[in-house]
Amino acid sequence: MYRTHNNGILNISNVSQKVKLCGWIQKSRDLGGMTFIDLRDRYGITQLVFNEQIDLELCNKARNMGREWVISIEGEVKERSNKNPNLKTGEIEIEVSYLHILKASKTPPFTIEDESDGGEELRMKYRFLDLRRNPVQENLKLRHRIGLETRKYLDQLSFMEIETPYLIKSTPEGARDFVVPSRMNPTEFYALPQSPQTFKQLLMVSGYDRYFQIVKCFRDEDLRADRQPEFTQIDCEMAFVEQEDVIQTFEGLIKHLFKTEKNISFNNSFPKISYSEAMHRFGSDKPDIRFGMELNYIKPLTNGAGFKVFDDAEEVIAIALKNCADYSRKKLDALTNWVKRPQIGAKGLIYVKCNEDGSFKSSVDKFYSQEYLRKWANECNAEDGDLILVLSGNKSTTQKQMNELRLKLGKDLNLFKENDYKPIWVVDFPLVEKDEESGALHAMHHPFTSPKKEDAHLLNDSPEKVRANAYDLAINGVEVGGGSIRIHDRELQEQLFTTLGFTKEEAEEQFGFLLNAFEYGAPPHGGIAFGFDRLCALMGNKDNIRDFIAFPKNNSGRDVMIDAPAKIDDNQLKELSIDTIG
Amino acid sequence: MYRTHNNGILNISNVSQKVKLCGWIQKSRDLGGMTFIDLRDRYGITQLVFNEQIDLELCNKARNMGREWVISIEGEVKERSNKNPNLKTGEIEIEVSYLHILKASKTPPFTIEDESDGGEELRMKYRFLDLRRNPVQENLKLRHRIGLETRKYLDQLSFMEIETPYLIKSTPEGARDFVVPSRMNPTEFYALPQSPQTFKQLLMVSGYDRYFQIVKCFRDEDLRADRQPEFTQIDCEMAFVEQEDVIQTFEGLIKHLFKTEKNISFNNSFPKISYSEAMHRFGSDKPDIRFGMELNYIKPLTNGAGFKVFDDAEEVIAIALKNCADYSRKKLDALTNWVKRPQIGAKGLIYVKCNEDGSFKSSVDKFYSQEYLRKWANECNAEDGDLILVLSGNKSTTQKQMNELRLKLGKDLNLFKENDYKPIWVVDFPLVEKDEESGALHAMHHPFTSPKKEDAHLLNDSPEKVRANAYDLAINGVEVGGGSIRIHDRELQEQLFTTLGFTKEEAEEQFGFLLNAFEYGAPPHGGIAFGFDRLCALMGNKDNIRDFIAFPKNNSGRDVMIDAPAKIDDNQLKELSIDTIG
Repeated sequence: MYRTHNNGILNISNVSQKVKLCGWIQKSRDLGGMTFIDLRDRYGITQLVFNEQIDLELCNKARNMGREWVISIEGEVKERSNKNPNLKTGEIEIEVSYLHILKASKTPPFTIEDESDGGEELRMKYRFLDLRRNPVQENLKLRHRIGLETRKYLDQLSFMEIETPYLIKSTPEGARDFVVPSRMNPTEFYALPQSPQTFKQLLMVSGYDRYFQIVKCFRDEDLRADRQPEFTQIDCEMAFVEQEDVIQTFEGLIKHLFKTEKNISFNNSFPKISYSEAMHRFGSDKPDIRFGMELNYIKPLTNGAGFKVFDDAEEVIAIALKNCADYSRKKLDALTNWVKRPQIGAKGLIYVKCNEDGSFKSSVDKFYSQEYLRKWANECNAEDGDLILVLSGNKSTTQKQMNELRLKLGKDLNLFKENDYKPIWVVDFPLVEKDEESGALHAMHHPFTSPKKEDAHLLNDSPEKVRANAYDLAINGVEVGGGSIRIHDRELQEQLFTTLGFTKEEAEEQFGFLLNAFEYGAPPHGGIAFGFDRLCALMGNKDNIRDFIAFPKNNSGRDVMIDAPAKIDDNQLKELSIDTIG
Repeated sequence: MYRTHNNGILNISNVSQKVKLCGWIQKSRDLGGMTFIDLRDRYGITQLVFNEQIDLELCNKARNMGREWVISIEGEVKERSNKNPNLKTGEIEIEVSYLHILKASKTPPFTIEDESDGGEELRMKYRFLDLRRNPVQENLKLRHRIGLETRKYLDQLSFMEIETPYLIKSTPEGARDFVVPSRMNPTEFYALPQSPQTFKQLLMVSGYDRYFQIVKCFRDEDLRADRQPEFTQIDCEMAFVEQEDVIQTFEGLIKHLFKTEKNISFNNSFPKISYSEAMHRFGSDKPDIRFGMELNYIKPLTNGAGFKVFDDAEEVIAIALKNCADYSRKKLDALTNWVKRPQIGAKGLIYVKCNEDGSFKSSVDKFYSQEYLRKWANECNAEDGDLILVLSGNKSTTQKQMNELRLKLGKDLNLFKENDYKPIWVVDFPLVEKDEESGALHAMHHPFTSPKKEDAHLLNDSPEKVRANAYDLAINGVEVGGGSIRIHDRELQEQLFTTLGFTKEEAEEQFGFLLNAFEYGAPPHGGIAFGFDRLCALMGNKDNIRDFIAFPKNNSGRDVMIDAPAKIDDNQLKELSIDTIG
């Protein structure tokens, strides 16, 4: 047996016990004849002490060890003279009588501290060392707990975790599928699932009633900071439900997770907002409602002044910043540059300062009189001392830009606190959206989403006007989950496939099994999927999901530690009946 | 809201309540003016009654519905006159006042009954209907519960579930890897993991101390009845442990699962047997110890009689069947034909009947006197009335054949009962084994298994004699799990790679990250992995793991329901920089 205790557990009640401990050397200090070592493991840190007076040889051995060496020791628990109240084991130390070096260590290329001196690339290459750092371990512990609590909670509600296959069939959105050549079926390919969508619907047809799975999904697309080629979903589906049943069930899950993990209680139901209202008020379908600063549409209040930029714009949108009329030229220029970056893409930024004396100062006051500016201020509910910022252009583009600006300002102005969580359901999404380049219609969520009954008559002639039984949960501006009531009728599903541009043959080839299943007694059903990586990051108060994944990939989809992907040899390619091009 | 209750819950205490129910029509019966319908969901069956006297129109509507239609009803709970004690809801029925057909159904191609009339292929094509059958639902419920209990148990012991990546790097045993072309990294491939082995070892180097994961693994090999290209493992690893620590921890898990799921208690520790003893006594490294009939080595007792078959054989092995001396010619011929099938491959089967009068009758009694046969009987502890069966030839081949024969006889002779579980740890496996064709050495478990300290000196000159710190858990002849204490030292790992025929460059290219990690303070560590599909099948008293997988693949690795794998189009191939050959 290597150890009697871990390094996070010994306290004053253990004094005078003989113990065996193992771990890594976090830190070593020599103090006049005494050597102190902080011994670390996942559970904590215990101080070891070596006394030259008692055993010179042992003390010398201890002095020669470096950080991250792995050792095992035996010794006696002693009460410390200098107690450390910040440490669980801070009342005691171990007077070491036996020391065994289990493994020496090279000096790590960066420090194993909460704030490491290693850059991201170096830490990713040595991820096995980066993973030793306390904040990363805390993230993964959080992830473990959220996963387990999710499972316990859903089990209590009679949900069954059922594993769906990873080797499936490529779908029409196939360009984003990872594919897998089959050795046993030459020239044929499996695809890795982008989600278990069709399988969970089949499980509803099969009568499983309540299904969930915490499951890896795969998408081969160009990666942004918060995307990974493989990611994890809490995937759920229920039969014989309407939208409100799903929403209430999973609002319960989210409340349970916040209660158990963060001791945060939400006493009321999460608010609901329609997609169109969310876009109108916040310019976003995942609004951050921790602060106001809502969007105001002032185009009608700008007419007739001869300012071409506004006159040509489809929409003019303004937000008011409380008590910011004293913004300097420099600050305003910085904001202007920020919105003009290609990621935001605004042409410029107009400001109106609502001075304390009731007058207005604006970058466009050669076009707009005080009268005009007062109307804008009234529309924005801006008061003396506030600052108004205005963007203009195409409506939806301007909404998106204003959303970005609003989120940035909310952060810059500290309009919300850590651990302030404001969930909101966004409902009544459009069923389809038009691709602006090709003019083709795409499913807003996915092609299995059902249209609202009252809009079904529009499906043929005005599909873009049809609202779906779809809902997203946003928390603090992060889309945490989304789902819908599904189609469970062959004819309606075929009609939607047609609307989305599938030929009858394509629909049959890709989804024949599902259409077929609908003919054998398909119950009404619906569900939801949560982005597990993102939920963990949100609850861990971090922006980057990579911090919550043990072995993440970089922006090129590479694992730089194991150096994957990599070439494979010609025999293997031949065996798989494929060849590489280029 | 579609329903107030599910179909497994209403009882006498609910009488006279108004309820709403949903489900599938399991069965419909017309009895003189009354129509009875069994309404089914995952939770049970509730009887509906329609009375012609009360509502003729409703009754006629009910009569016209077929099996597997999905309906919703409203009605009043009534006490039954004819109670059904076999049904949870057997005391009541629902007098229906409102009936809504949610979805009609085509007539299913096979019956949705415990014993379906559908063949395997048809049921797999319509797996969504097969999954409605009660035995399949019970299997998946069992799987759900075992998964959840495993997680709860390991969490209690401070194990953390940590997800390891699915898109990794192809390994030297690469012929069995599924590979995944990377669009973003043209001509390069990921591989799907055959197990998370190296990642869980890295997590130990990273200080996670106790890791587990219930995780999909992938192997592209020719499939046998109990193999699937994707399968699920309970994958575990611990730091600062010796073999006995791992064995005790996971013996605890198995005991917990049997207790919670089947109310079976194992009061003692599971027995342990060395690999060599297991092979000697049972001819198998996963012995079924529910019954005796052990192997006896009688070659020395056959010499000098001029029977060429035995004289030329390396080994002659006998087993004794209690009270089977009365086996007929026909039975013995059938057994002989059974062992001569190519799957077993024996040349023939010799018998010796130990007659009740103390004499012997044997198929080789023209070579062997009663004296000889008595010695064999003594060696086998055979008594009057027993039957001895003998196979001969190459030792290891004959052991394997005798193992198969023994298992078959154990089953045929009913030597064990359902729900009789006899676990046994098999330890001291050889570190490597020789490929009989190529003469190359392979790792018996995998190349990360550590040799026993006391055998380490043999590693260079007699690697086949080296025993490993490896252990398997067998239950009733099924290998449920296996693991080892790993190498955590760069030099030893490199030495073993050399023994296994890796060049230094190959070892570095494939496993450089792990060798590298070992230099930064790697703790001693070890672990185990359980075959989750197989564990579920074992606990569910079934042989076939497919019965415990929601959407299994067939022997060609195909999902016949969704028709995968399949061709993908040329654009997609081009996008991935690959081409198909042939």
